[in-house]
Amino acid sequence: MTDGRPGRAFTKGHGTENDFVLVPDLDGSDDLTAQQVRALANRRAGIGGDGVIRVVPTSAATEESVREQAGEARWFMDYRNADGGLAEMCGNGTRVFATYLRREGLETADEFAIATRAGVKVVRFEGELIAVDLGPWRLADREAAQQKGSDAMVKVAGLDPLPGLSIDLGNPHTVVALPDEVDLERVRLREAPEVMPRPAHGTNVELVRPLAAGHIAMRVHERGVGETRSCGTGAAAAALATRWWAGETAHNTTWWVDVPGGGLRVRALEGQRVELAGKAVLVADGTTTLA
Amino acid sequence: MTDGRPGRAFTKGHGTENDFVLVPDLDGSDDLTAQQVRALANRRAGIGGDGVIRVVPTSAATEESVREQAGEARWFMDYRNADGGLAEMCGNGTRVFATYLRREGLETADEFAIATRAGVKVVRFEGELIAVDLGPWRLADREAAQQKGSDAMVKVAGLDPLPGLSIDLGNPHTVVALPDEVDLERVRLREAPEVMPRPAHGTNVELVRPLAAGHIAMRVHERGVGETRSCGTGAAAAALATRWWAGETAHNTTWWVDVPGGGLRVRALEGQRVELAGKAVLVADGTTTLA
Repeated sequence: MTDGRPGRAFTKGHGTENDFVLVPDLDGSDDLTAQQVRALANRRAGIGGDGVIRVVPTSAATEESVREQAGEARWFMDYRNADGGLAEMCGNGTRVFATYLRREGLETADEFAIATRAGVKVVRFEGELIAVDLGPWRLADREAAQQKGSDAMVKVAGLDPLPGLSIDLGNPHTVVALPDEVDLERVRLREAPEVMPRPAHGTNVELVRPLAAGHIAMRVHERGVGETRSCGTGAAAAALATRWWAGETAHNTTWWVDVPGGGLRVRALEGQRVELAGKAVLVADGTTTLA
Repeated sequence: MTDGRPGRAFTKGHGTENDFVLVPDLDGSDDLTAQQVRALANRRAGIGGDGVIRVVPTSAATEESVREQAGEARWFMDYRNADGGLAEMCGNGTRVFATYLRREGLETADEFAIATRAGVKVVRFEGELIAVDLGPWRLADREAAQQKGSDAMVKVAGLDPLPGLSIDLGNPHTVVALPDEVDLERVRLREAPEVMPRPAHGTNVELVRPLAAGHIAMRVHERGVGETRSCGTGAAAAALATRWWAGETAHNTTWWVDVPGGGLRVRALEGQRVELAGKAVLVADGTTTLA
């Protein structure tokens, strides 16, 4: 029924229920305004998504820095937040973007580089999983982490204050291990947990529960957003904190992290880097008169 | 990019930001399961909508009662809630459904009948507006309404208890006029207002503010849902309560009701009936692998 109807092409997809509207602009001639992004991402008046990803050749990226650093990356993930603003990167978004490139035949290898505003990222397909190197991580306060295993106290609604370990992955995270008697699914995360001392620029808070060796469950409250179904860097922080608590030299370097939107795999890489892997799904294709 | 890709056709549209996934099933051969409806309506893992509308010929309706009562209505609005359950009717949905029928050439007149589980409804196009007769309305407690102009007290977060007037439009509504000093936009409607005496089956609460003669602004808390961008029967209840307070024999029979998602027109019809009119927008067409 859509044949011949005018409009801009789009694809909707998600990675562990972090969802995106993909807009192909394969010759880089048709940029999106902030207003168009907001219209596309609007969940009631538009198509709806946590963000909008324009698919554009690196050679046609507006930003000189992206073009200069692109190297072998042929496609630029031009990621915009739902509010229309430019964003550097999105871990769950890279998997959806890479899946789109493969389906469309724009990339055909199992491993290839993509350009983002946070630099070039290498994505690798392993069956249903798509892995991406999130880059370096560090403990926010290594000394406190070594002495006490924590650097903050976190007050979650309905619970006593709990120790938290803060990890920087380009964005800030504070990870809290729940006591055995607390049911992760029942914790109230509607309000932002209070972190003391209060981080200058806020923090994302991850609540974790060990399930088995190398397997944890997590819920996340994203700063400025609220609870979300998934957060890629949050899953990585949760796994890295769990590893830290088990001893910095813990043998295990791979964790499965259950988030409300699905499952993610986190691996500690050489050189204090971390890799995130998970599925990505493209659910709909069409045309829209919104942009 | 979508040509030749397998999947089920869909259209997304909204009426005052009450949004729907329309699924054409023009020969009535391809019904949706509750699971498929939930997948389509899921805002993160699916396409997203307040409801799903299957477009099906009345002669192919599953329910014998719909087929028997259809009369001249050629198309059945097979409306499903986002949770997968069957629903009787949806005022904002009828406008989107009717707009789809006209765009597809399935109906061509300015006025035609459509079948719903709540009986046949006549829709009428007046330029950009689409009007639909919502049927009869009645005061829940006529005696109290006549004596005091109200039949309940309503406690909204942060405000003193205010009198409310309860109106039945097939579903229950309690309408509250805000005092002049209260800013409608700033009222906290995250929690459900408390209505005393407590209605056995709950009620939808409308907060109204007069703007000019025949023009009011409204926000609505829908029972079991929370605040929404629009509620068609709620707008009708708000206008009818405003009219009641102005004197039952108020000369004016037409109101414009501003809701967060747009504007609606409400008209009192002969025989204690009420008509709702507003715009409808179809924003995207495509195919999906979800159903």
